[in-house]
Amino acid sequence: MVKARTAEAIDSTWQEIRRGSIVLAALATLREEHYGYSLRQALLDSGLEVSEGTLYPLLRRLEGAGLLGSRWELGEGRPRRYYRLSPDGEAALEELRCGWRKLAEVLSGMLAR
Amino acid sequence: MVKARTAEAIDSTWQEIRRGSIVLAALATLREEHYGYSLRQALLDSGLEVSEGTLYPLLRRLEGAGLLGSRWELGEGRPRRYYRLSPDGEAALEELRCGWRKLAEVLSGMLAR
Repeated sequence: MVKARTAEAIDSTWQEIRRGSIVLAALATLREEHYGYSLRQALLDSGLEVSEGTLYPLLRRLEGAGLLGSRWELGEGRPRRYYRLSPDGEAALEELRCGWRKLAEVLSGMLAR
Repeated sequence: MVKARTAEAIDSTWQEIRRGSIVLAALATLREEHYGYSLRQALLDSGLEVSEGTLYPLLRRLEGAGLLGSRWELGEGRPRRYYRLSPDGEAALEELRCGWRKLAEVLSGMLAR
């Protein structure tokens, strides 16, 4: 059994790895328009479980940075805020995607050994 | 041209993605014994440039968490501190490796679309 401080180190490292990946996954998924709940479902369908407490502040942060645009839609129930990648967001995604591919290749090589 | 806040958002996301990956890469590389400089070189040879200011505090943090062991070696020049994965570190690497593989698979799928 690993010690508590070791388990904690594994957990915090894992959170670090996940955090950046969630941003990338959210941007990639928002090439199509989504509201919060439908985005969470789409990420979950892809195999990525993201809590509301993580996702909703992230959406606001990405919109604040100009990577997302949003609009309200008034339907039958509660008004929904739909988000989608902005043109700047598309450029950002492209840049991050290139970097991520190289990084993933390096790590795959290391971890295969 | 992207706006300053957008460039900043890209940069901070990228730093987040890199941060967790560097920990994983350092652990994987430290299956063999290294001192600080030789580890930096090994990471660089693998395509990952990590500054001393990032790597040295990381080594101390991972040792403090029990994932690394270290020993001093007195050679002809300055004494060198050699680090290597501890048994707990090996267990941690195995766990992180499994998680990372799944995550990388999910992201590759998303980013290929």
